[in-house]
Amino acid sequence: MLYTLSVLVRPKDGVLDTQGRAVMSTLREMGNHSVVDVSVGKFIRLTLESKDEESAVEAAKAMCRDLLCNEMIETFTIKVGDVSK
Amino acid sequence: MLYTLSVLVRPKDGVLDTQGRAVMSTLREMGNHSVVDVSVGKFIRLTLESKDEESAVEAAKAMCRDLLCNEMIETFTIKVGDVSK
Repeated sequence: MLYTLSVLVRPKDGVLDTQGRAVMSTLREMGNHSVVDVSVGKFIRLTLESKDEESAVEAAKAMCRDLLCNEMIETFTIKVGDVSK
Repeated sequence: MLYTLSVLVRPKDGVLDTQGRAVMSTLREMGNHSVVDVSVGKFIRLTLESKDEESAVEAAKAMCRDLLCNEMIETFTIKVGDVSK
């Protein structure tokens, strides 16, 4: 069966989020003074074949650890389905 | 009041997702043959000051159009709260 999973990769709390800082300062320069914080990460949508949902999530976790997330400086969350829908 | 919004930016359907393709072929080379499709986009978490939720979302939409999303090749979704929690 096919499963769609949303992987959200974010900078770990406490790690300098250079992209987030750059976006925030640009937004402010553009007049968006209401912005207090910006964090920039990756949204990876995986579609994979699996016997059940649990195995699909386990497979996605392994892919995060092997490739999609640098766990020294990033953290990941996996949600079943497409969070952008 | 402070609002946290999750902005999910994805390649438009029909636009070649080069990052997604690259990640998929690498995952397969690493033995993950169950992977059918991969889409790679941005997860931007915005924290901003606003009088109410509706205005916060409107402000975030304007930021997406001005800076965060290239609407020629990308599409964005805004969710209230942090979808990675």
